[in-house]
Amino acid sequence: MTPLKLRKVAIDTHRENVAYLHRGCPLYRSEGFQSLNKIEVRDGPERQPVVALLNIVDDDQITAPDELGLSEQTFAQMNLPEGGAVYISHARPPDSIRAVHAKIAGDGLCRDDFMQICQDIANNRYSKIEIAAFLVGCAESGLERDETLYLTEAMVATGDRLDWGEQLTADKHCIGGIPGNRTTMLIVPVVAAHGMLMPKTSSRAITSPAGTADTMEVLAQVDLMPAQLQQIAQRQRGFIAWGGTANLSPVDDILISVERPLALDSRGQMIASILSKKIAAGSSHLLIDIPLGPSAKVRSQAEALKLRKLFEYVGDRTGLQLEVVITDGRQPIGKGVGPALEARDVLQVLQNDPRAPVDLKEKALQLAGRILEFDPDVRGGQGCHLARDLLESGRAWQKMQDIIAAQGKNPVPPKQARLHFDVPASAAGVVTAIDNLQIARIARLAGAPMDKSAGIDLHKKLGDEVEQGEALYSIHAEFHADFEFAKNAAQQDSGYRLQARP
Amino acid sequence: MTPLKLRKVAIDTHRENVAYLHRGCPLYRSEGFQSLNKIEVRDGPERQPVVALLNIVDDDQITAPDELGLSEQTFAQMNLPEGGAVYISHARPPDSIRAVHAKIAGDGLCRDDFMQICQDIANNRYSKIEIAAFLVGCAESGLERDETLYLTEAMVATGDRLDWGEQLTADKHCIGGIPGNRTTMLIVPVVAAHGMLMPKTSSRAITSPAGTADTMEVLAQVDLMPAQLQQIAQRQRGFIAWGGTANLSPVDDILISVERPLALDSRGQMIASILSKKIAAGSSHLLIDIPLGPSAKVRSQAEALKLRKLFEYVGDRTGLQLEVVITDGRQPIGKGVGPALEARDVLQVLQNDPRAPVDLKEKALQLAGRILEFDPDVRGGQGCHLARDLLESGRAWQKMQDIIAAQGKNPVPPKQARLHFDVPASAAGVVTAIDNLQIARIARLAGAPMDKSAGIDLHKKLGDEVEQGEALYSIHAEFHADFEFAKNAAQQDSGYRLQARP
Repeated sequence: MTPLKLRKVAIDTHRENVAYLHRGCPLYRSEGFQSLNKIEVRDGPERQPVVALLNIVDDDQITAPDELGLSEQTFAQMNLPEGGAVYISHARPPDSIRAVHAKIAGDGLCRDDFMQICQDIANNRYSKIEIAAFLVGCAESGLERDETLYLTEAMVATGDRLDWGEQLTADKHCIGGIPGNRTTMLIVPVVAAHGMLMPKTSSRAITSPAGTADTMEVLAQVDLMPAQLQQIAQRQRGFIAWGGTANLSPVDDILISVERPLALDSRGQMIASILSKKIAAGSSHLLIDIPLGPSAKVRSQAEALKLRKLFEYVGDRTGLQLEVVITDGRQPIGKGVGPALEARDVLQVLQNDPRAPVDLKEKALQLAGRILEFDPDVRGGQGCHLARDLLESGRAWQKMQDIIAAQGKNPVPPKQARLHFDVPASAAGVVTAIDNLQIARIARLAGAPMDKSAGIDLHKKLGDEVEQGEALYSIHAEFHADFEFAKNAAQQDSGYRLQARP
Repeated sequence: MTPLKLRKVAIDTHRENVAYLHRGCPLYRSEGFQSLNKIEVRDGPERQPVVALLNIVDDDQITAPDELGLSEQTFAQMNLPEGGAVYISHARPPDSIRAVHAKIAGDGLCRDDFMQICQDIANNRYSKIEIAAFLVGCAESGLERDETLYLTEAMVATGDRLDWGEQLTADKHCIGGIPGNRTTMLIVPVVAAHGMLMPKTSSRAITSPAGTADTMEVLAQVDLMPAQLQQIAQRQRGFIAWGGTANLSPVDDILISVERPLALDSRGQMIASILSKKIAAGSSHLLIDIPLGPSAKVRSQAEALKLRKLFEYVGDRTGLQLEVVITDGRQPIGKGVGPALEARDVLQVLQNDPRAPVDLKEKALQLAGRILEFDPDVRGGQGCHLARDLLESGRAWQKMQDIIAAQGKNPVPPKQARLHFDVPASAAGVVTAIDNLQIARIARLAGAPMDKSAGIDLHKKLGDEVEQGEALYSIHAEFHADFEFAKNAAQQDSGYRLQARP
């Protein structure tokens, strides 16, 4: 075997490992390597290989003929200095691809199959197209509930697992789709004020106008190191941070990076994704929020129940204490949609401001109450009262201020967006429907979540009466192009349905 | 919109379009571009975009902050000089992805769906993972025969189409899997000697020890320009060239580049692939060879018949005159396996050498006879006699010499490989089975098709008697490492089954 000199190529290829070989390298022709071949890179004969996609280079500046270039992420995985000797060979398809073929042919897979697939994916042995084949195979045949369980277990087993050192570590998760649904930022201070541990890692928005991490970032830092999080959890009993840095269920991240552009929607996959992340994050008790409504992700009671049963099935078999609540998902929650506007709603609720949106407050208390009842000392049915007391007494607001201080308060308060437009009602009537998807779309067009202050401020909710020309909601934007896009979208379809008064 | 300066990055990314953007480019953060995003690149607002996968660069040498780098193939598609102004935007998923989702959900697709999918694929609007989703969706639900027809038509419509200016343009295709099956190099000179037009483009080996193009290359040049091919076809009535340069059914090439690493095996996909290439290549009359045997691609008569019906269904509806012959695929054809050894067999048959393998000759005559009967002046059942006459009279050999001269004779005759090993029979007996797959595997390990002279020379075929220790076949190799790999594989499993004499 001929060694090549390792070189770092300053190209960020994210979750796709890429290696660069010069066309003039003697190995290129003799070994029949071609661009887009999958190769194995080793620093010795018996070493665990790093698998990468090959690109052929015609420029010595990028990779010389005696070198092997690796993209930034791939180089990091080699854990070897530049100039170190590496050996390349053709990668064989991962052994577990046989199970993927079986799934495509309609067979069920066993625990071992999922474990091997996840191990191969975690070791970067799967190309994007092999991952796509696995996901489509699962989406098309569907996953049996045991398969969902096995996939969950395998995703947990192939990553790190946090331990907060306590029997009861509470968590919550909403399956999403409802704009403005920022209950987590109320639940965490309520639950932590009670003394229950709730170390909450959240995501940033990917397809929505704001994620909890985006909204919390308006008030405090959310990119924290694991050691800081441990310390804050101990002292404050809770935090609201971004969960992107830990190596929790890394296979889930890899699957999502293929699943999302494909817009695949598989129930089993979703449940395995959520539960593997929560188990890996060290949660012992978990509340799941399934909003139900005509423009929510779940649109029928039957579908919601199926989902609940599947959550319970997998939760029970992985040692999670899991409760599922089906909530009202017929319209956005609160008034603001977009990080800064949602943060404003949250602060109003915490501060018992009379302008605070009642629906956001009540939903947060309902969910916080269910979580407080995980405490054996809280009597069944008393959780919600307890939560209300913690909130209305100001203890939750005090706790939130402590958490913000511990995470690092954002010194710059969010400023109002520069541009505003009121979307008027086309006729007088009663609001009978609000389309969550259209509201989310307009808020994103306005610039959320990239522009923290951009988004939508709702003035009317279901059942409200409106006069012709009265503002249904305001659009807030920082930039003219975004503003025009959002206005045009709202003028084509406001997302509101009104029924004329008789 | 902010323009970027176009730059060619000397990286060969084959069939995957890749664009490079510097992390310091102002568009990177403001527009939320991330590595592995799909972007559209245009040289003006209303222009047809080139779609590419984004990589983020941290080295000004590769792409500066005011530049957009494109890989070699992507740059060629832009058709714009370096430094030209280009604009980038997020690519939306292709519209036809809705049809892919419908297929994954188990629905059938209509003619329009396949046309739109193929147009989007031809325009590089599909990422590899979207192509994988389409292929797995088709493999899992299967393609109805009308869907196979629509896919064939759409693949033809989205590429170039050759026209040889004659009513009868003959072609043949073998679905593959049988080592040594080099009948094309006999059929073309026989058919052309009769005066029938047979412009044959062939593939190089991808998973087999030799393709027709690899074997012909032992004797003559096969990388010819379209104008040369037209001229040779006119003067010689036939040629045997590599078909890789023309833009015939380009969608098929793109699908195969994803299908092959996935090792997906779908009947409808295979038929659409074969027939779209043949129709695009301007064939009017086509003979399909389906070898049947326990280690062939098709292993039962029922399967072979299904395949035949589907070929006929699609052929009849696309205006192809198509005949299907089911042939004996129980063992390799001829003696040599590997380009030079197969070329030797072919020449022996053409030269009526008494050492010529009878099975190769008889199979070639059978198929050539069927093709000759496409000529209305040849009486049904007389084709094979006519073919035998053309071969045994030496006219086919003369024609082959003319074709070789026209394509450009290879001045270096193939030399024998340096290393030889005879694989002995472990006991006396009769040969009852030869495993096509194992023979192909050993020949590839020995170095075929990269080393033209490497491969296997068979001394025993089905029904032959052997003594203990007698050579079943010889392994030929150029390099020691290959030689050892091939020897070890043969020692573990020779691919031969012997039955002891009673």
